[in-house]
Amino acid sequence: MLDNFPKIGILGGGQLGKMLLSEAHQWSLPVTVMDSDVNAVCKQVCHDFVHGDLLNYHDVMNFGSKVDVVTIEIEKVNLEALKKLEQNGKTVIPQPSVLEIIQNKVKQKQFYKKHQIATSRFQSFDSLESLKSAILNNEMELPLIWKAARFGYDGYGVKKIDSLAGLDSLDDNECLTEELVDLSKELSVIVCRTPSGDTSCFPVVEMEFNSLSNQVEYILCPARVSKTIENQAIQLALKVSESFQHYGLLAIELFLDKNQNLMVNEVAPRPHNSGHWSIEGAYSSQYQQHLSALLDLPLKNTSIKSPSVMVNLVGKEGYSGPVVYENLERVHTISNAYLHLYGKEMTRPNRKMGHITILNQELNAAYHQAQKLKQQIQIISN
Amino acid sequence: MLDNFPKIGILGGGQLGKMLLSEAHQWSLPVTVMDSDVNAVCKQVCHDFVHGDLLNYHDVMNFGSKVDVVTIEIEKVNLEALKKLEQNGKTVIPQPSVLEIIQNKVKQKQFYKKHQIATSRFQSFDSLESLKSAILNNEMELPLIWKAARFGYDGYGVKKIDSLAGLDSLDDNECLTEELVDLSKELSVIVCRTPSGDTSCFPVVEMEFNSLSNQVEYILCPARVSKTIENQAIQLALKVSESFQHYGLLAIELFLDKNQNLMVNEVAPRPHNSGHWSIEGAYSSQYQQHLSALLDLPLKNTSIKSPSVMVNLVGKEGYSGPVVYENLERVHTISNAYLHLYGKEMTRPNRKMGHITILNQELNAAYHQAQKLKQQIQIISN
Repeated sequence: MLDNFPKIGILGGGQLGKMLLSEAHQWSLPVTVMDSDVNAVCKQVCHDFVHGDLLNYHDVMNFGSKVDVVTIEIEKVNLEALKKLEQNGKTVIPQPSVLEIIQNKVKQKQFYKKHQIATSRFQSFDSLESLKSAILNNEMELPLIWKAARFGYDGYGVKKIDSLAGLDSLDDNECLTEELVDLSKELSVIVCRTPSGDTSCFPVVEMEFNSLSNQVEYILCPARVSKTIENQAIQLALKVSESFQHYGLLAIELFLDKNQNLMVNEVAPRPHNSGHWSIEGAYSSQYQQHLSALLDLPLKNTSIKSPSVMVNLVGKEGYSGPVVYENLERVHTISNAYLHLYGKEMTRPNRKMGHITILNQELNAAYHQAQKLKQQIQIISN
Repeated sequence: MLDNFPKIGILGGGQLGKMLLSEAHQWSLPVTVMDSDVNAVCKQVCHDFVHGDLLNYHDVMNFGSKVDVVTIEIEKVNLEALKKLEQNGKTVIPQPSVLEIIQNKVKQKQFYKKHQIATSRFQSFDSLESLKSAILNNEMELPLIWKAARFGYDGYGVKKIDSLAGLDSLDDNECLTEELVDLSKELSVIVCRTPSGDTSCFPVVEMEFNSLSNQVEYILCPARVSKTIENQAIQLALKVSESFQHYGLLAIELFLDKNQNLMVNEVAPRPHNSGHWSIEGAYSSQYQQHLSALLDLPLKNTSIKSPSVMVNLVGKEGYSGPVVYENLERVHTISNAYLHLYGKEMTRPNRKMGHITILNQELNAAYHQAQKLKQQIQIISN
């Protein structure tokens, strides 16, 4: 391995780590990955894979001690170990102080309030019981959005509550409720910052969610919004980024309501599903930006090469087991369609198994092509 | 690993294999690599690396027996094993019959003659001694170009001979001589063919050689030639491709002489240095094309996204040993400059250690940027 470069350690070995690794391979950077799953997809493309528990203090400390720069591809990691590693002089990106706020959605909401960043109204509860009491006492108006304070992802840990009964299946942990936003669109802006203070910002993209799974299904870049909204979204994202003073990527998910008001939904301090399009669609991808931040190098050109649509490929409902792909070759019927498969051995309903990005000067044409491919390609199990 | 895909084996673990692997990783294809160097760069990005001698029949047979599709990233491999593997029903790309012609430059020249493909005039000799006799007997006019029949690469196995003394340091093996061409430019066209007969062709690029090392130094895409020459070059390349009936990539190196005549210099049946630009500069890279051929999928869009210049980064004269890079961060001063480092631990004079591709709507501007970076970035050893 190369002696000139700091050694990078990635906590988490899923697809985000894998795409970051792919980018690191271009420079032959020395990178190691830790995951608790011995079959984590990063293992296939990484010569130096460590098996360890991301939430275990000693595992994270051991892993971090052997590298120069520690980063994450998942928020669910042991924070105390990251703090200690930072104290010991390791570069930790995002900084533990930033991750601590983001790991807890109550703290995140309070942070927006403190920094006067537009966000939907919310209330926090230290247990599900206290939320139930509040509803029973008519202190809360239904419907509302319930969110687990910690470690929700991909539609898990978020639920629309229409009645008290809707709370029955939920864990009795710290949580928050948000009032429903009369949504026009959901948008995302990804910002990158380096320790030296260089900042870059990707264009505003539009996120379309699957109404059944509550997961993002399509990303349209650029978002089909007015120039005014675009500028406001960028300004809001930069304000959030500036407030957090984070290093590395910060993906800022925004609500645009029917009155054209923008507000922050939540953020993720790592590569994000809403930035996969940038691998082919931007001059520099979110993964290249993040690596630059890890190495504290100047950031590069985030502008778009071509309008693009990304569609997630997820495991079909009703199938769990060793993965089988159907009709993948259809990707080759669409000009400028780029298939990414994450290499997961097992599929299960709604598991993110891959994605396709389609470049097309006509965004709506790309969207229709993506919808067609999504219908044709099935991810099942025998 | 995924069960849906045939298992691919790459003979050779250098940078061409590594870039092919990077592409295969996007689909999480099951790929294994064999190289005789236990530190081959592919090993860093490959979970399934095999140590073996590419020229040893049994090593190649063993390796090939465990995969479905065998391909190469270097021509210097055991041909008999590839023939046997093909007989045993394995897909071998390029086909051994094609590789057999290309491995031997005398056979290659005879092939062009037989197929009435324009090439420089040549004579073949079964030994250096017989060439010396011919010169002594005044049967040959000096200067001329000497080429070893087998296994020359990167400027090795090629020499301009001005006098008898110039032959002294050469190996006494089968060789050929070519008459000097009054060169205007050297061009390259890369064609891909699938077993099902789909064909794609990359734009004509211009190759600039380093006059001291005789290695390609810059690739300019598209080539700065007239539309007429461009069309002729494409037609000539397609004729060569059609004559070989190869599967996978074929890089066709062309001479353009001062009278605007095009002729074939030589070909390579694999990813080629003159196609690295396509990773960022084309909608589909040479590596994506080659993978499509390996899987017999329809080929994709080879047109250019942006004019581009690729510059090779090679080990500086006078330095051999563990590699040290100087001023790499300068890449970040150029918009849309993409650095690739191959991860070789040891540098030596003129060893290919990496490359940079620069996208710029103004080709000449990209060229000047590339020249500047080439001056700034030094690859040395302490």
